[in-house]
Amino acid sequence: MAVGQFYLSCLVLGSLGSMCILLTIYWVQYWRGGFAWDGSVLMFNWHPVLMVAGMVVIYSAASLVYRLPRSWVGPKLPWKLLHAALHLMAFILTVLGLVAVFSFHNHNKITNLYSLHSWLGIATVFLFACQWFLGFAVFLLPWASMWLRSLLKPIHVFFGASILSLAIASVISGLNEKLFFSLKNDTNKYSSLPSEAVFANSLGMLVVVFGLLVLYILLASSWKRPEPGILTDRQLLLQLRPGSRSFPMTYKPVTVRQPCEPW
Amino acid sequence: MAVGQFYLSCLVLGSLGSMCILLTIYWVQYWRGGFAWDGSVLMFNWHPVLMVAGMVVIYSAASLVYRLPRSWVGPKLPWKLLHAALHLMAFILTVLGLVAVFSFHNHNKITNLYSLHSWLGIATVFLFACQWFLGFAVFLLPWASMWLRSLLKPIHVFFGASILSLAIASVISGLNEKLFFSLKNDTNKYSSLPSEAVFANSLGMLVVVFGLLVLYILLASSWKRPEPGILTDRQLLLQLRPGSRSFPMTYKPVTVRQPCEPW
Repeated sequence: MAVGQFYLSCLVLGSLGSMCILLTIYWVQYWRGGFAWDGSVLMFNWHPVLMVAGMVVIYSAASLVYRLPRSWVGPKLPWKLLHAALHLMAFILTVLGLVAVFSFHNHNKITNLYSLHSWLGIATVFLFACQWFLGFAVFLLPWASMWLRSLLKPIHVFFGASILSLAIASVISGLNEKLFFSLKNDTNKYSSLPSEAVFANSLGMLVVVFGLLVLYILLASSWKRPEPGILTDRQLLLQLRPGSRSFPMTYKPVTVRQPCEPW
Repeated sequence: MAVGQFYLSCLVLGSLGSMCILLTIYWVQYWRGGFAWDGSVLMFNWHPVLMVAGMVVIYSAASLVYRLPRSWVGPKLPWKLLHAALHLMAFILTVLGLVAVFSFHNHNKITNLYSLHSWLGIATVFLFACQWFLGFAVFLLPWASMWLRSLLKPIHVFFGASILSLAIASVISGLNEKLFFSLKNDTNKYSSLPSEAVFANSLGMLVVVFGLLVLYILLASSWKRPEPGILTDRQLLLQLRPGSRSFPMTYKPVTVRQPCEPW
C-alpha cells in the first residue's frame, strides 16, 4: 500500500480525533454549563472531555506509532519511547478524568462505581495501567529476554486493541447515561430528540467511527513494521528514496542494525 | 498450538456463552417479571435475551467456525454453509429482538430510536445485514472471482470482529440504560447497588469477557485455516492422525482438492 495513502489516512484520523475532542468540549460548554474544578457538576464536565481525549484519541495516536512508515526501518528505541510517552500522556489525562468524576461524586454525596458504565470504565483503566507497566517492563527496559518479548507481543497488541474497544464501549454507555440524566424536563426530554440529543448522539457515533478506523489500521492494514530479517519492498523503497535524510541510498539490512530488538 | 487446547477453549467459550444467555433469562424472569408477547414491558423483556443470544453468543459461534481444526483441511463449502446458516440464525434472533422493543414502544407510545444505545444498536444490525448479504453474494455464491474474494476477505474478517465489538458496546449501554430506568425507587435505587444491580452489572461484565475471548481466538490465535498452498504441520498432523475418518493416512496436498477456493 502506498505510503501517501497512509499519510492521507493519518490526516483523516487526525481530523476525526480532533473533532471528537472539540465536539465534546463544545457539547459541555454550550449545553452543560462549561467547566470548573470545584466539585460541582461543572467539575464533572471535565470527565467526558478528558476520557475522550485520553482513553480514545491520544491512546489511538500512541497505538499507531509503529504504523508510521518512518518507524519501519532504523533503530526502534525512539519509537518505543514515543509509544510509551504518548500512552503515559493518555493515562495521565484518564486519571484526571477519574479525579473529576470521583471529586464530583464525593462532593455531592453520590455513590461511586455503581453503574455498569463505571464498572466497565474502571476495569478498562485498570487493564490500561497493567498494559502500560507490563509493556514498560518487558518491551522498553532492556532486561526481558527475546523469548519473553516474542511470547508477549501478540498479547500486548491484542490487549492494546481490546482496551481501545472497551474505552469506546465505556464512552458510549457514559454518554447515553449522561443524556438520560440531563434531558428529562418536558422542554428537553431525551425521547423528543432535542438538538442536544442529536448533537451528543452524533458525537458518540463519531467516536465509534474513529475507533473503527484506528482498529482497522492497527489490526487489518498492511502498514505494519515487518519482523526483522524480512526486508520488504516497502523498506527497500524507503531506504532507496532519493533525498531521504535518515536512510542512505545504499542497502543496509535492518537485522544488522537491530541485533537486540526482536521487533 | 495443540488441538486439545482449542477444544478446551471451545468448552470454556460454550460455557461462558450459555451462561450469558441463561443469566439474562434469569435476570428478566426473577427481577423484571418474565416474558410475554403482548406489547407490554414483558414483551420488551425479550429484547435483552434475544440480543445477547443472537448478536453476541450465536454470532460468536458462527464467527468461530473456521477456527475448528476439522475445518482446516478438506472441502470448505460445508463450513461456509454452516458459517452462513449460524449467522442467519443469529440475524433472525436479532430481528425478533428488534420486533420486541419496537412493538413495546409503539404499544406504549414511546418514541423509537432516540437514545445513543438505539442509534448504535440499529447501526450494528444494519452493518450485520450488509455483512451477511455481501458475504453470501461474494463468498458463498460461486460467481465472484478469486481476485474479488481475496480483496474482500480481510475486510469481511475485520467487519465481522467489529460488528461483535459494536454489539457488545450496544449490550453494555442497553443494560446500563435499562437499570437506570428500572432501579429508581427508594427501596431499589441503582446507586445503592441492590442485588439486581450487582447481578446485572456482573452479567454485563461477563458478556465483555466472553466477547474478548472470542475476539482473541478470532484475531490473535494461531487457530486459523491456512491459505491454500501452505500445508502446515497442523494440517499434516490432522491428515496423518490414526483413525481419522475424513482424511486418509497418505499425504494429499490440500491445494489439489480445492482448486476453486482461495481460502
